Amino acid sequence: MQERGGVEEITVLVDKPDHGGDVRGGPGDHVELREVVADECRLEDEVLGRIAGDRQLRKADDVGARGARLVHPADDQPRISGQVTDGWVDLGESNPHNSILTAPSPPLGLVVPVAYFDRLRALSRERHTLLCVGLDPDPDRIEGGAAGALRHCRDVVRQTEEHVCCFKPNSAFWEQYGPDGWAALLELRDEAPDTPFLLDAKRGDMDNTMRAYARAVFGTLAMDAATVSPYLGSDSLREFTRYEDRGVYVLCRTSNPGARDVQHLESGGKPVFEHVAVLAEGLNGAGNIGLVVGATAPAEVAAIRRITALPFLLPGVGAQGGDVESAVRAAWNGDPASCLVAASRSVIYASKPAREAEALKAQINLATGVRA
Amino acid sequence: MQERGGVEEITVLVDKPDHGGDVRGGPGDHVELREVVADECRLEDEVLGRIAGDRQLRKADDVGARGARLVHPADDQPRISGQVTDGWVDLGESNPHNSILTAPSPPLGLVVPVAYFDRLRALSRERHTLLCVGLDPDPDRIEGGAAGALRHCRDVVRQTEEHVCCFKPNSAFWEQYGPDGWAALLELRDEAPDTPFLLDAKRGDMDNTMRAYARAVFGTLAMDAATVSPYLGSDSLREFTRYEDRGVYVLCRTSNPGARDVQHLESGGKPVFEHVAVLAEGLNGAGNIGLVVGATAPAEVAAIRRITALPFLLPGVGAQGGDVESAVRAAWNGDPASCLVAASRSVIYASKPAREAEALKAQINLATGVRA
Repeated sequence: MQERGGVEEITVLVDKPDHGGDVRGGPGDHVELREVVADECRLEDEVLGRIAGDRQLRKADDVGARGARLVHPADDQPRISGQVTDGWVDLGESNPHNSILTAPSPPLGLVVPVAYFDRLRALSRERHTLLCVGLDPDPDRIEGGAAGALRHCRDVVRQTEEHVCCFKPNSAFWEQYGPDGWAALLELRDEAPDTPFLLDAKRGDMDNTMRAYARAVFGTLAMDAATVSPYLGSDSLREFTRYEDRGVYVLCRTSNPGARDVQHLESGGKPVFEHVAVLAEGLNGAGNIGLVVGATAPAEVAAIRRITALPFLLPGVGAQGGDVESAVRAAWNGDPASCLVAASRSVIYASKPAREAEALKAQINLATGVRA
Repeated sequence: MQERGGVEEITVLVDKPDHGGDVRGGPGDHVELREVVADECRLEDEVLGRIAGDRQLRKADDVGARGARLVHPADDQPRISGQVTDGWVDLGESNPHNSILTAPSPPLGLVVPVAYFDRLRALSRERHTLLCVGLDPDPDRIEGGAAGALRHCRDVVRQTEEHVCCFKPNSAFWEQYGPDGWAALLELRDEAPDTPFLLDAKRGDMDNTMRAYARAVFGTLAMDAATVSPYLGSDSLREFTRYEDRGVYVLCRTSNPGARDVQHLESGGKPVFEHVAVLAEGLNGAGNIGLVVGATAPAEVAAIRRITALPFLLPGVGAQGGDVESAVRAAWNGDPASCLVAASRSVIYASKPAREAEALKAQINLATGVRA
């Protein structure tokens, strides 16, 4: 194994993606970090021992490479608001909301993580895109089980990465393949370490259980962001938002026809989905919350944008027939994170995924009116 | 491999738990079944080839043992209503709702599956219990990663099986361990083939994705029942209810404090959770739907029982502090499936899980007033 500095070993100890091993810990681990940093020699021994003992950790070097992302920020680090309304074109690296990127070194020489929404904003500017490609392998369309799914999606990632600012695997499609599907998803995540991965999982359970889901998604699978369901309310959602450097998109108004059944019930003069938007706003103290708002319903996108500046994830483009222009115009507010447009089937089953992604990127940019 | 009759090979082909391999197919597979049955020799070759080629199928004999359960009923098989209100004490094997157990042989010599709710009713009568034990391993309390979790939960299953009519693993706790967790869950399911397994997964996504979740839960993981979230509406739920021999519990009023945030919003004079109960009733054509109603809210249990005879799953007993007597009295309507009471932490971390389960079983039975 390659020699590394003490800091990287520390990050491994705190929250490495530990597939099948000890999965204790959570967003409060920075406390333990500060305690153990005093004794680097002992620490190094422990870390090397753990890596050697983990038969599922296929690429030990990847842990170091992603270590910085996996440390949770201490509470005294500056918080980043997710509700900026800056114009996209006019902002450069001097954007004050990006200050964490160039912040002075924190105490104890810790590696400071960049929060998900800030990585998303930076990458969106850098690559000039608002596109997110969904990685949802369908065994009816891809031969070869989990290995075939991995091969196909790896190829899509390689071909489309320059045109996206995020990848969005949906958990369901990988779960179909059983344990091999989870292993494949872990490998896929390693394919594009520079691009955030958003796990579309729509989890929602009671607090104790939601803590376990958060560990699974942010710890074991090392995802940068996730979707969650609001049906169980604030105590449930809070178990995800506690991970302040990760993004949490709350289902608000989904892209399917059945969305009307529950989400459109009127209560106190407004639909349930607007109550959910207000609920999400109230949990956004760390600036790490967004909303899922289907691109198939531009009128609802506009209604929700009128009451909140939270970042939107807009699925439903492509195979689901969403109206890209209308949805983007309704969602976009100048914040590069305000309008993340997700397409899956129309890209990953295209004969040329790169060309499809590039065309969609251009179509979305045109709709924002700030990029030709 | 042991010699088997043609029927068992057929059931393997249709819907065996195929971990990591080809996961095509779904509830419509009985059509294919009828077509291929004409050529048993070719079929047998294919099946043996598939089993030999599946490196993850650790116990080939288990597939045969559970094969009957895995065939989906043809539409012309008798449907079983989940809304009976028979008195529990007075019913024996002559219960007409159990007729599928002794039905005459169907055409083509197929093995007829017993639907989840009928298995639950039969087992509840046989073992005199309404208890369901949750299998939710916590890495903070159980040493040894996924292997430790499996060992612990296997022991709980062995100790408590005679006192339960169902086991309920919650997906979150197994997902924490990554691919090893999913493999462990598959092994755990093999520990008690005579007792239904209900995967508490609270899945809810758009139709295409929900189909993938249903395959994962009912196909790959071979679960008998599952919990689902209603936030995405009827088209989402229908992808699970299409599996007519499996049970589908829709979240209605959950056991956590945050349940009030969305579920209690009033719309048209009644709370959202009552709208959900009505929605679920409307999807119950196959008699395979139940509702999740937290034991921590007996008043809401009673309110929902007033508007529906659907089977209830009542979590929240034990560690969550639910009032067993009040909740059971409110839920019970004489149908042995009407009141499935789930406890997890209070049983699986007890020094003597068997004794804890037995005591809880007796407490629940007493509350129904039909068993001393």
